[in-house]
Amino acid sequence: MHGCPSRGRSVLAEASCSEKFGFEPRFCTELRQHYYDRSAPGECLIKLACTGVCHTDLHAKLGDWPLKAKTPLIGGHEGVGEVVAIGANTAQSRINIGDRVGIKWLADSCLNCESCRKGREQNCPDAKLSGFTVDGTFAQYVVSYLQHVTPIPDGIDSFDAASILCAGVTVYRAIKNSDTNIGDWIVLPGAGGGLGHLAVQYASQMGLRVVAVDSGAEKKELCLQLGAEKWIDFHESKDLVKDIKDACDGLGAHCALVTAATGAGYQQAIDYLREGGTLMAVGLPGEATLEASIFFTVFKSLNIKGSYVGNRQDAIEALDIAARGKVKCHYVVRGLSDLKDIYEGLEKGTVAGRVVLDISK
Amino acid sequence: MHGCPSRGRSVLAEASCSEKFGFEPRFCTELRQHYYDRSAPGECLIKLACTGVCHTDLHAKLGDWPLKAKTPLIGGHEGVGEVVAIGANTAQSRINIGDRVGIKWLADSCLNCESCRKGREQNCPDAKLSGFTVDGTFAQYVVSYLQHVTPIPDGIDSFDAASILCAGVTVYRAIKNSDTNIGDWIVLPGAGGGLGHLAVQYASQMGLRVVAVDSGAEKKELCLQLGAEKWIDFHESKDLVKDIKDACDGLGAHCALVTAATGAGYQQAIDYLREGGTLMAVGLPGEATLEASIFFTVFKSLNIKGSYVGNRQDAIEALDIAARGKVKCHYVVRGLSDLKDIYEGLEKGTVAGRVVLDISK
Amino acid sequence: MHGCPSRGRSVLAEASCSEKFGFEPRFCTELRQHYYDRSAPGECLIKLACTGVCHTDLHAKLGDWPLKAKTPLIGGHEGVGEVVAIGANTAQSRINIGDRVGIKWLADSCLNCESCRKGREQNCPDAKLSGFTVDGTFAQYVVSYLQHVTPIPDGIDSFDAASILCAGVTVYRAIKNSDTNIGDWIVLPGAGGGLGHLAVQYASQMGLRVVAVDSGAEKKELCLQLGAEKWIDFHESKDLVKDIKDACDGLGAHCALVTAATGAGYQQAIDYLREGGTLMAVGLPGEATLEASIFFTVFKSLNIKGSYVGNRQDAIEALDIAARGKVKCHYVVRGLSDLKDIYEGLEKGTVAGRVVLDISK
Amino acid sequence: MHGCPSRGRSVLAEASCSEKFGFEPRFCTELRQHYYDRSAPGECLIKLACTGVCHTDLHAKLGDWPLKAKTPLIGGHEGVGEVVAIGANTAQSRINIGDRVGIKWLADSCLNCESCRKGREQNCPDAKLSGFTVDGTFAQYVVSYLQHVTPIPDGIDSFDAASILCAGVTVYRAIKNSDTNIGDWIVLPGAGGGLGHLAVQYASQMGLRVVAVDSGAEKKELCLQLGAEKWIDFHESKDLVKDIKDACDGLGAHCALVTAATGAGYQQAIDYLREGGTLMAVGLPGEATLEASIFFTVFKSLNIKGSYVGNRQDAIEALDIAARGKVKCHYVVRGLSDLKDIYEGLEKGTVAGRVVLDISK
Repeated sequence: MHGCPSRGRSVLAEASCSEKFGFEPRFCTELRQHYYDRSAPGECLIKLACTGVCHTDLHAKLGDWPLKAKTPLIGGHEGVGEVVAIGANTAQSRINIGDRVGIKWLADSCLNCESCRKGREQNCPDAKLSGFTVDGTFAQYVVSYLQHVTPIPDGIDSFDAASILCAGVTVYRAIKNSDTNIGDWIVLPGAGGGLGHLAVQYASQMGLRVVAVDSGAEKKELCLQLGAEKWIDFHESKDLVKDIKDACDGLGAHCALVTAATGAGYQQAIDYLREGGTLMAVGLPGEATLEASIFFTVFKSLNIKGSYVGNRQDAIEALDIAARGKVKCHYVVRGLSDLKDIYEGLEKGTVAGRVVLDISK
Repeated sequence: MHGCPSRGRSVLAEASCSEKFGFEPRFCTELRQHYYDRSAPGECLIKLACTGVCHTDLHAKLGDWPLKAKTPLIGGHEGVGEVVAIGANTAQSRINIGDRVGIKWLADSCLNCESCRKGREQNCPDAKLSGFTVDGTFAQYVVSYLQHVTPIPDGIDSFDAASILCAGVTVYRAIKNSDTNIGDWIVLPGAGGGLGHLAVQYASQMGLRVVAVDSGAEKKELCLQLGAEKWIDFHESKDLVKDIKDACDGLGAHCALVTAATGAGYQQAIDYLREGGTLMAVGLPGEATLEASIFFTVFKSLNIKGSYVGNRQDAIEALDIAARGKVKCHYVVRGLSDLKDIYEGLEKGTVAGRVVLDISK
Repeated sequence: MHGCPSRGRSVLAEASCSEKFGFEPRFCTELRQHYYDRSAPGECLIKLACTGVCHTDLHAKLGDWPLKAKTPLIGGHEGVGEVVAIGANTAQSRINIGDRVGIKWLADSCLNCESCRKGREQNCPDAKLSGFTVDGTFAQYVVSYLQHVTPIPDGIDSFDAASILCAGVTVYRAIKNSDTNIGDWIVLPGAGGGLGHLAVQYASQMGLRVVAVDSGAEKKELCLQLGAEKWIDFHESKDLVKDIKDACDGLGAHCALVTAATGAGYQQAIDYLREGGTLMAVGLPGEATLEASIFFTVFKSLNIKGSYVGNRQDAIEALDIAARGKVKCHYVVRGLSDLKDIYEGLEKGTVAGRVVLDISK
Repeated sequence: MHGCPSRGRSVLAEASCSEKFGFEPRFCTELRQHYYDRSAPGECLIKLACTGVCHTDLHAKLGDWPLKAKTPLIGGHEGVGEVVAIGANTAQSRINIGDRVGIKWLADSCLNCESCRKGREQNCPDAKLSGFTVDGTFAQYVVSYLQHVTPIPDGIDSFDAASILCAGVTVYRAIKNSDTNIGDWIVLPGAGGGLGHLAVQYASQMGLRVVAVDSGAEKKELCLQLGAEKWIDFHESKDLVKDIKDACDGLGAHCALVTAATGAGYQQAIDYLREGGTLMAVGLPGEATLEASIFFTVFKSLNIKGSYVGNRQDAIEALDIAARGKVKCHYVVRGLSDLKDIYEGLEKGTVAGRVVLDISK
């Protein structure tokens, strides 16, 4: 037993733990059996059952963002587990030992800066980010923060909940804030993907009319079954902008939810959006710029809104909708021990669909 | 007397009129003494007293926008005059002969399409644009539309009102829709210019704290006198983004009103805006794209909102504020006969400040 | 043939027409075969196929509102028919002869006052109200206004569309403006009634969770089938406020849509609403006042929002949703000749459910 | 030295302290020299310099609200002082010993319930209320909560800041949330009073046009000097509703900020508000109900919004505006030892204007 380097504190851990820290292999399967005496008020220890795998973790590993991860650390930011300890001197908490909770990208925030006071906790300058600035969920145990862990409602399986905590929350918040109204057209490029197929469901549940844009018969079937009203295969389309506008009464869409890693997807959206429409930007590519025409952004009175993950309320709402059976993530289950393989696959682009890891395997 | 080519109708006009039509020299000083028999319901004839000169007219003339003007036609879209005739069979109108009214960029709209019904009349697909798709205000008489002419309130001089109808309305609407709150910081690049100095005043009147960015002692004095709280000379600044952030509590601005013709101004705004901030885009450069980092737009939860001139309500509000003495446009008076010279000067960049033309000269 | 007193114009009509005008029997089954020469631009003549019967017509008849109807006139404000003539000198219109259109309570507005410019056309001081200040739809032909008639989309039967034009629009607008979010609880007192059962459907389509409050097994079944999540029988409940709060996570509802004719329903809503909640008031009782506690309205940060019918955009949206099969009005069909009987029944309270009249019968 | 009953904790206090506790005389001039060992994380001890006196304290004393104060306790909820101790085990705080801070009505909230997550911290079910459920500011020392104390900016005197913390915050938040726009008319009944004269200033700073309603030459002069555009003396007016409508372009006001203790003021506001207008309710009378016509609330599309004190962000903003010299409270200074006299005067209605107590006297 020796000190674990994670977060600069002395932690009792298995000998092999520290060796495994760092971004390669970036996970820790050992127990953190003994929660530290010097735990701060407001912290808790969670025994994880499962964790989602998200593309963002790849940016953390590759270091290709303008922001750098505080390596070495444990990645992962979509975990579900049980609270097994609460920090001493915690004044009060609605979370109790034994509660099932989720960990999202935003592990903690100060709740007192301007961003927090205004409800944009994810923009807190002191935000702690799971798997990016504090140890994440690719481990059996993780320390997290009582004010920010998300209670998992009854009626949803932990594995089902995991991906909601990042992919689900992200698209949910974006659609919620997209200034759309029931009956409006929303375009979802990448609708058959990890974020996209959740967006199809959340948008449909709000009464939006979904134009799913993606490629392949399998994704087409998935999107239409999940509630999309129109399908456009971008490989088959000869004029994507025209096809989308045609699908939307010939006038264009009221909203587009763009996750594209290149600027081109943004210019397309400016072109196929209806006057007064809104482009919700949720992707976080390292380098790309919004290559959107200023003229048409102004002339068409378009809004481009950056939407960054979600806050506590978004997470609770997104999970509540899923727990009531309205939204379901499609994923495959793997074991935590497969983590390295999966990240190699993500880098090569060979991982299809969302992956949730069983911590016990 | 012969037919005037303007708007495809037979108009009784002085012989010399048709010769002077077209974009060179793009104005008509002759009388349209006789309003046509076949005038449509809802139209009116206005005898102009003055007209502002706007940089947009230069785009119309140069044809360097993605949208092309319907040339030949008479330019100008900031006119004030008196209603001297109303189209036959006009059912009802709150405008009467003898009323003083203003003509803005948006000369008419259908009032019944989705954009009009939602109050974004400027996005009407059937919008008529003064000096761009219908004859404008560089003339002694102009035909306009009763539903869209703006009543000029008592207490404001026609020359003072002219520039409010385009420059004033444009910045007013943008600031009004910028999601700012009293006490928020707004950055105004080009604060000493035609749009900028009006924006300084409107923003101050709403209780916003203005950071004026421009260059030169004269503009500095103007901006501070008009209500700006901070002044930054972009020629003297070594790090404009840093200086702006420092001016705004070190945290950056809540809003920027960007009129820049190049993408660089947009990237700067993304950098100096505070998390959750809003970039109001009001400029209409022909080619430029928003060279703004997608990563930081998303990560900082920024909004980029295109704001295109203003609707009828915006015009009424912007004028009302000016008529109550809260906002005043700085301009020089020239004669309509100077129009050609002025446009040559605009092209060369030698025209300083806003110009209003006296139609009688 | 002689002059019809309706709206002070000379109309060619069958002799018996004028006799039948006035509030008893308040309908005209004769043809207005010949549209008048002196029709104003912007008007149109509609041959009606059907018309809904609404409780508001009873207020018009009884004169028990603070506003009085301009009697004698023809009642009715939920009609669907075909445009058979358009007023001479109408400049332009998106409506053509042969189009199927709907007539709603708001027959016309000026489109140019402050209310109209801001999109609250129903608050126009020059608003014309079908069956209240201008002749309504209890007739074979009606004169209406091109800017305000509502195009009926394909895919919806005229009889199905009729009630949407008043009951549907009213509840749709109110729910749309209720500041609710997907997953919020909305309480619908009278959920099984004419307005209520449409509200259940619109609310469900937006992802709201509906607590239906009404009485009787039949209404219970209807509400649950239409999408209500919870049912409370007010006759069976011993503590309605408590039962509603319990149904809403124990915390109370985010919204209530109140049509009650007495103040008591408002005080109940103040009690069962959650902090920050919204009471949408849509009923128009003649005398009653909001008997709601000021203390709790303030202390709980509640909003009480009056929502008055709907504007053109609301009507288009409400119909579009219905035409796509998402909302369906339950009604019985009667003949126009039954009108007098029906109103006697309405006065006695013996008419159950929504009635649509076949004009041909 | 013995235990102080306040808040159920053992506090070292002067012998006479406990005798003076309770609502008569409801203040404690003794030192709480020794901060308790068992202080909770997140608490702090503040040595007060001054405290405002507010009418709400009278409700606490009289017990005439639907909510009862947890007596005996120390009243007062507008205090300014210096942090002299911070609770042990406080994890982190932006507040340090020596900081000057303010205490407002909302002493603390959980920051994690639905209301807190949505930024309505004042509606937290676990809210602690100064001088109502926890000891307030009528004392030399008070225990408060680091997450909720308001930093007092430089440039404002502690005495000037005191009344901003309740009266200022309350009217500021209400005006901020009143859905008004620059140039709109706002009516302020009681404009010359404690809340009113602050509302005149905040409203003017946002560019609203103020109709001050009150009585007497002194108040008239005060209101007009502070920025009111119109003055109406309710004692001199023969038709208050008409006079207010006339003052507002003949159309009525866009907003009214009503603090009235009886329902009549609400009905008047419904009558003089313009269509689409907003009634901000901020008063907390014990018994009164909103005696407002349902018909006209609906027909005029009016909003009645309860606004309850303010949250942390409101307090920071209201103080920032005051610290920049834009708003100044008018008050008289008395000593804490005068407290009993002042409350007797409040009960009799003989206290004119706002009072701030010097704790040292």
